Amino acid sequence: MRAYLSRRYRLSASHRLHSDAYTPEQNRAVFGKCNNPHGHGHNYIVEVTLGGPVSEETGMVCDLGKLDAFAQTNLLDCFDTMNLNTLPPFRDAVSTTENFTIEIYRIFEQFPGAKLIRVRIEETSNNSFEYSGQTNFRKAETI
Amino acid sequence: MRAYLSRRYRLSASHRLHSDAYTPEQNRAVFGKCNNPHGHGHNYIVEVTLGGPVSEETGMVCDLGKLDAFAQTNLLDCFDTMNLNTLPPFRDAVSTTENFTIEIYRIFEQFPGAKLIRVRIEETSNNSFEYSGQTNFRKAETI
Amino acid sequence: MRAYLSRRYRLSASHRLHSDAYTPEQNRAVFGKCNNPHGHGHNYIVEVTLGGPVSEETGMVCDLGKLDAFAQTNLLDCFDTMNLNTLPPFRDAVSTTENFTIEIYRIFEQFPGAKLIRVRIEETSNNSFEYSGQTNFRKAETI
Amino acid sequence: MRAYLSRRYRLSASHRLHSDAYTPEQNRAVFGKCNNPHGHGHNYIVEVTLGGPVSEETGMVCDLGKLDAFAQTNLLDCFDTMNLNTLPPFRDAVSTTENFTIEIYRIFEQFPGAKLIRVRIEETSNNSFEYSGQTNFRKAETI
Amino acid sequence: MRAYLSRRYRLSASHRLHSDAYTPEQNRAVFGKCNNPHGHGHNYIVEVTLGGPVSEETGMVCDLGKLDAFAQTNLLDCFDTMNLNTLPPFRDAVSTTENFTIEIYRIFEQFPGAKLIRVRIEETSNNSFEYSGQTNFRKAETI
Amino acid sequence: MRAYLSRRYRLSASHRLHSDAYTPEQNRAVFGKCNNPHGHGHNYIVEVTLGGPVSEETGMVCDLGKLDAFAQTNLLDCFDTMNLNTLPPFRDAVSTTENFTIEIYRIFEQFPGAKLIRVRIEETSNNSFEYSGQTNFRKAETI
Repeated sequence: MRAYLSRRYRLSASHRLHSDAYTPEQNRAVFGKCNNPHGHGHNYIVEVTLGGPVSEETGMVCDLGKLDAFAQTNLLDCFDTMNLNTLPPFRDAVSTTENFTIEIYRIFEQFPGAKLIRVRIEETSNNSFEYSGQTNFRKAETI
Repeated sequence: MRAYLSRRYRLSASHRLHSDAYTPEQNRAVFGKCNNPHGHGHNYIVEVTLGGPVSEETGMVCDLGKLDAFAQTNLLDCFDTMNLNTLPPFRDAVSTTENFTIEIYRIFEQFPGAKLIRVRIEETSNNSFEYSGQTNFRKAETI
Repeated sequence: MRAYLSRRYRLSASHRLHSDAYTPEQNRAVFGKCNNPHGHGHNYIVEVTLGGPVSEETGMVCDLGKLDAFAQTNLLDCFDTMNLNTLPPFRDAVSTTENFTIEIYRIFEQFPGAKLIRVRIEETSNNSFEYSGQTNFRKAETI
Repeated sequence: MRAYLSRRYRLSASHRLHSDAYTPEQNRAVFGKCNNPHGHGHNYIVEVTLGGPVSEETGMVCDLGKLDAFAQTNLLDCFDTMNLNTLPPFRDAVSTTENFTIEIYRIFEQFPGAKLIRVRIEETSNNSFEYSGQTNFRKAETI
Repeated sequence: MRAYLSRRYRLSASHRLHSDAYTPEQNRAVFGKCNNPHGHGHNYIVEVTLGGPVSEETGMVCDLGKLDAFAQTNLLDCFDTMNLNTLPPFRDAVSTTENFTIEIYRIFEQFPGAKLIRVRIEETSNNSFEYSGQTNFRKAETI
Repeated sequence: MRAYLSRRYRLSASHRLHSDAYTPEQNRAVFGKCNNPHGHGHNYIVEVTLGGPVSEETGMVCDLGKLDAFAQTNLLDCFDTMNLNTLPPFRDAVSTTENFTIEIYRIFEQFPGAKLIRVRIEETSNNSFEYSGQTNFRKAETI
């Protein structure tokens, strides 16, 4: 019996879409008003999906208390109420939600309690992004 | 690094579930009150999922501005505030949300900016429908 | 043309996370405040996903009226406004939402109208659980 | 101890905004694409608010079972899966959600179980309408 | 400049609607399946509305950190993951959400940081309850 | 027949809670992590409520097209994808959502199409703020 658990964490952060490799005109053309110089922000909903056998003793896929403690230290304490552009993962990468999703995937891959399946971020009520790791892509594309 | 982007478009339309191949009694038996003669309607939430490599330059799977322009012309201008039964795709097909989902999949397959993975429509807060294309079905069925 | 239909059913029930194999201290350590002696409860949102060919005659994957009748008898009449711990499926299994999801999967596998693909339960606005059956797990893990 | 209870009913219907007193050009100018000839539709969420003393015996403002029975007969059976324009209340009134809200207020004023305070309809995720009766307007405007 | 702040707290609890003053038949007749002997539960969303002048120094109606600390001690620690029927406020009162709303109003009336205006509880996605205190009822009824 | 219309506009912006009148320690004490130096952001949902007579000709409280045009020019073009702290209304006022709500109220008071009743902003899924103007406060406090 193997099942999946998805847990949502909510954080507010700001970002500015901007690439140092582009001229100001190119930045404006590519990123539109998301390139506004002082940045803007979102309430990001981060949904982490883990999979594994359901323990016969506990009836659970993983210990939610440990998952929450891991998320507090490695996700919320690092990104909540922050400007993404000022943080290490976005020194060399544009702070799009695609890249934010990949970064959070790398973080939760380190969670020892269950296998990470997918990270999904809702950036707004109309936009969401998913990443399932590199090796899983080919099969995933057929979903 | 390959990731997925899902974007939601919202439109209001009406439809009547009715098959010309059925007698009035059969129509009423199969479609119930959704066969009411003057039709009814929904706020359809159309979620389009695209997948592809995350560009190193832009940090994005596809250009959202181009996707929105494509959706405006090919989805919203065609279906928003319309009666589905009066439109070409439903001349020979019942205007169920299954068929509406497949129709929208065919439309977004033509979007040149990224590979279409899936179309999902929320018809009401309790009903949703998905279509992932014909060739992907066997693998998809194992989700 | 094969598509998916997901339908949501809503029910309120109570449960207490507790294993007879554990000491009171172990129960408290494993289940935390969810082990409180008198139980607590949730508004469970149960989403059932079915897949199959879209009928040319009806434009539908399955008859929603039959699905609703099946759900009324086999899901809502059995679990709505009940204490899960007092019901047969949870005599020998902890009443976690993982186990509840698996139990509901077994129930809807018996629905004759279309192939069951997945059961997903939203336990709270932050927690959800999925089960796709035993044989599908390996492929599913690559989603 | 006086309290308020709000209960939501959900129905799907179609309408076309059109006034017989206007020319086709005027109709198009006033109602825009909502004047499209074949109509469109919505999932209307109707929220009815009732107020009254909380019974010491039952702890309730009103009997929900009776309210639901009243709503089934007088709201859902009359309007769900219907075209509003074909129904008596909209023979002489445009089928806007403002007028639909007022019509439903008149209906629930007849509910004998508790005092009607307000009717609110969510037409889409961005639009909602409220009506609190004629005599209450002056005070209500100061909310 | 006076404004309102509403803050939501989420808790899961169980209850059983039952009056000691009634016979078993009366209990069943009044409370229906909510009288099931082992109880059921909900995810209650408690929304507390406070009002007051907006401070020129802080731009705030009240200190959210203090409000959250108050809510943790007086709301969440007392009611989350509990069976309402076993708690003091429901020894002599039926554990309806009407009575739960009034009880929470009494609790937040003690919050020293701003004037309590209203407590509202969403019991399910279709049911909500409000209480605005005793003296305010007459005016409130005209909303 | 007088009714109310509420319309929601969605915008993303960033802000930093900070008062020039405070020392850095005071700022940190009052605003907590919302005082982080580079700011953070939100998806703000702005709900504008207007009231007035329902026109017999149009069945409407106000012309939604005109309201949307007004909101585009005076709300979305000014605040969407911006950093609130850099904008004129927040030169001398802390960019809290209380103050943002009051600012938007002042803007929509200028809308000529219907009487403004209330502005409400959802800052996160747990926090919302309302402002109903200065003269209405006394009565409003009794809601």
